[in-house]
Amino acid sequence: MDDARQNDQLGQWDRDSFLHPSTHLGQHARGEAQGRIIRTGEGVYIEDRDGQRWLDGFAGLYCVNVGYGRQEIADAIAKQAQELAYYHAYVGHGTEASITLAKMVTDRAPDHMNKVYFGLSGSDANETNLKLVWYYNNIRGLPRKKKIISRWRGYHGSGLMTGSLTGLPLFHDKFDLPLSPILHTTAPYFYRRDNFEQNEAEFVAQCASDLEEMIEREGADTIAAFWAEPMLGTGGIVPAPTGYWEAIQPILDKHDILLVADEVITGFGRLGTMFGSEHYGMKPDFITIAKGLTSAYAPLSGSIVSDKVWKVLEQGTDENGPLGHGWTYSAHPIGAAAGVANLKLLDELNLVQNAGEVGTYLNRRMKEELADHPHVGEVRGEGMLCAVEFVEDRARRTFYDPSRKIGAKVVAELAKSHVIGRAMPGGDILGFAPPFSLTTDEADRIVEATVKAVNGAGL
Amino acid sequence: MDDARQNDQLGQWDRDSFLHPSTHLGQHARGEAQGRIIRTGEGVYIEDRDGQRWLDGFAGLYCVNVGYGRQEIADAIAKQAQELAYYHAYVGHGTEASITLAKMVTDRAPDHMNKVYFGLSGSDANETNLKLVWYYNNIRGLPRKKKIISRWRGYHGSGLMTGSLTGLPLFHDKFDLPLSPILHTTAPYFYRRDNFEQNEAEFVAQCASDLEEMIEREGADTIAAFWAEPMLGTGGIVPAPTGYWEAIQPILDKHDILLVADEVITGFGRLGTMFGSEHYGMKPDFITIAKGLTSAYAPLSGSIVSDKVWKVLEQGTDENGPLGHGWTYSAHPIGAAAGVANLKLLDELNLVQNAGEVGTYLNRRMKEELADHPHVGEVRGEGMLCAVEFVEDRARRTFYDPSRKIGAKVVAELAKSHVIGRAMPGGDILGFAPPFSLTTDEADRIVEATVKAVNGAGL
Ligand SMILES: Cc1ncc(COP(=O)(O)O)c(C=O)c1O
Ligand SMILES: Cc1ncc(COP(=O)(O)O)c(C=O)c1O
Repeated sequence: MDDARQNDQLGQWDRDSFLHPSTHLGQHARGEAQGRIIRTGEGVYIEDRDGQRWLDGFAGLYCVNVGYGRQEIADAIAKQAQELAYYHAYVGHGTEASITLAKMVTDRAPDHMNKVYFGLSGSDANETNLKLVWYYNNIRGLPRKKKIISRWRGYHGSGLMTGSLTGLPLFHDKFDLPLSPILHTTAPYFYRRDNFEQNEAEFVAQCASDLEEMIEREGADTIAAFWAEPMLGTGGIVPAPTGYWEAIQPILDKHDILLVADEVITGFGRLGTMFGSEHYGMKPDFITIAKGLTSAYAPLSGSIVSDKVWKVLEQGTDENGPLGHGWTYSAHPIGAAAGVANLKLLDELNLVQNAGEVGTYLNRRMKEELADHPHVGEVRGEGMLCAVEFVEDRARRTFYDPSRKIGAKVVAELAKSHVIGRAMPGGDILGFAPPFSLTTDEADRIVEATVKAVNGAGL
Repeated sequence: MDDARQNDQLGQWDRDSFLHPSTHLGQHARGEAQGRIIRTGEGVYIEDRDGQRWLDGFAGLYCVNVGYGRQEIADAIAKQAQELAYYHAYVGHGTEASITLAKMVTDRAPDHMNKVYFGLSGSDANETNLKLVWYYNNIRGLPRKKKIISRWRGYHGSGLMTGSLTGLPLFHDKFDLPLSPILHTTAPYFYRRDNFEQNEAEFVAQCASDLEEMIEREGADTIAAFWAEPMLGTGGIVPAPTGYWEAIQPILDKHDILLVADEVITGFGRLGTMFGSEHYGMKPDFITIAKGLTSAYAPLSGSIVSDKVWKVLEQGTDENGPLGHGWTYSAHPIGAAAGVANLKLLDELNLVQNAGEVGTYLNRRMKEELADHPHVGEVRGEGMLCAVEFVEDRARRTFYDPSRKIGAKVVAELAKSHVIGRAMPGGDILGFAPPFSLTTDEADRIVEATVKAVNGAGL
């Protein structure tokens, strides 16, 4: 069968059989939406089955951090598949790859964190963390201390509880979320502050006092943990306001509230430091990891726990026997082998440093070109994350009517230059999260294409 | 470094860094429990790093259905890793492997089920199903119809909601589960019926009337779905009593209650039919799949939905826009490639038929050898699933005190013959779930080793 005919057939099967995530199901099944079948990739580029090549400015879903087509990781996966594709990790079982990766991860984690559990997705790692948070307070004899405070605009996954932690209506509506006992506090999103008159310091003080008020209102003895990305990702790619973590951390410490740092995006280098917690001086009790752990070459996530938490978990199993928690594919050997090869590559190619440097360059260039545009409210970013937020009226900060789908329009224009960006939910926000191997030339290409797309969309 | 020294070092890293699933954390970290580092496998055998070889009578965790070391699957994984390790499936994106697998799965599913969503674990597939069940009734304008009835002794995962669906205390205690709105009805476990005087038909009538009563009590307009494995797996490996599904299915139909068949264990052949739903004549609205989909060579799960459900989902996105649900690694290419190769192998080697035939042989031989043993209450199974339940007093059906850990003792004895079985939670139950490629000789070896272990444990 020739390629074109095979693509037609795949397209048909796709529409007939495949229930895609985050997709308009009706339009897709009726063939009204353009799906794309991806065939291969190299560096920051992917190629579809029609032979079109794209600069992937979003690294998949902020995850192919080392770039596509890395031979070292493909080889590690092939070798592991050959030797032992699977054995479970229950009841103390392991493989060379999973144990080595556990060692490599804890070596890279903050000093006070020395144990890691492996799952598959960022969502399931947050699920594990939530179970362990509750277990922790049960073992400590604090059975009422169970509520979780997360933030509007946070993204922590798409399950029932993790979607509840998430603070975006798209993931709540029609699914009856959020469920209790999840509460949401103010989004640390300075540009979208309620009171546009506030300066950054005032806004940070507001975030802190909103959190304190919620804790007082609910009772600190009912609050188990604060759940947060070091900086907002899917909620808009928003660096934490200056002084934010310095204001939040003492409140948590004072009220014996655990900090779960969701580093699914920021972990393993995206901010130019190994972890976002380092970058912002946070002191987490749990770190959630996924994407960058394997650069998405195979599914693997993790929960890194602090020594303080571990001690209580150990006490818990001494008192109650084995932990009733596990996924069949926890610490899957293929994922573990990919993780080991990926972390080695990060070091050998100095990719964390490159993410910091070229990311800074990308952000600077994007600001130079677009920060003063009349329909750009803000250009912002940190490390290898960059966003451009569009507004109807810059001076009065009025947003476009969502039905105009300005963000999606800019992304469609961008695609004409064969550059992939992402229309973030909850606003007209164009996001970039390229592979760490991005060069300054490739960064220039993203910026040029963005300028052209903004104009092409008629802004 | 020589092998022994390297193993010592791995052992140390393991104890220092690795938080294992379903493990006694304290004992493991202190080196009081014997962990095992697995190196390779072939057919029904695995080999650890000390060179010990084991007949894996549990196929990992009932998942390595085609057996270890299949070159065809290793090659498919290697090829996919080489071509394209990852691209996402959001917004209608796909890869040749994921689309082909969607087609292969729906071709094998019951006729009225034609769409499949791909996740990573059995737990997350149940999570997806629960979200879709709620969405379904919201779109239908039945926002109160949300409660779920699952069964005591069911196992549906280990997350917060999926662990709530699970009906085993080990997965609830100290985690504050089950959460609402999950209810549990009578376990379809004839041997453990409350009233030992009941015959099987009476017991089935009891199960049906318990379910009806729960529905009446709660109000059928509040019940969305019934969640069930075709036969109990982790809850004890218990075939459905004769007439059970014939009695349950009409109750669900009458009250407009969806049936979610959790076929994570039974899907793709373990009962000698492609699905357990076929075997028992169930008519599910959702089928949860995982393990057998890839034989665990790479993490992949799925949710197969009926045409009836799909129609409402389509209407839902037509009315509300894209579905707010997805995992970064949904339909991961490596998992999809493993799935395609695995399903081909199942067909080519006639493994579903072999599972039925050799499974029947294994069950027959186990019964012949042990059904009359004074401390064996029941030998039971179906297809390639077999369990031996131990009792202190056979005539009066009195169980051993759990603190005597009889099940674990038998498993430890079994290991002396280098055969792996599993001590199931919730009783002294020895479980087997071998790869489908098991030969009658290997089945004999399992039976002989079991007899020896039962005697060795002093029963
Ligand atoms: C911060 C954060 N947490 C959790 C998740 C969920 O990860 P996954 O999609 O692998 O379930 C994501 C995914 O984008 C994320 O960005
Ligand atoms: C019937 C059933 N459903 C769901 C699951 C959960 O699957 P996983 O461990 O992949 O999350 C299992 C695991 O054993 C299972 O047996």
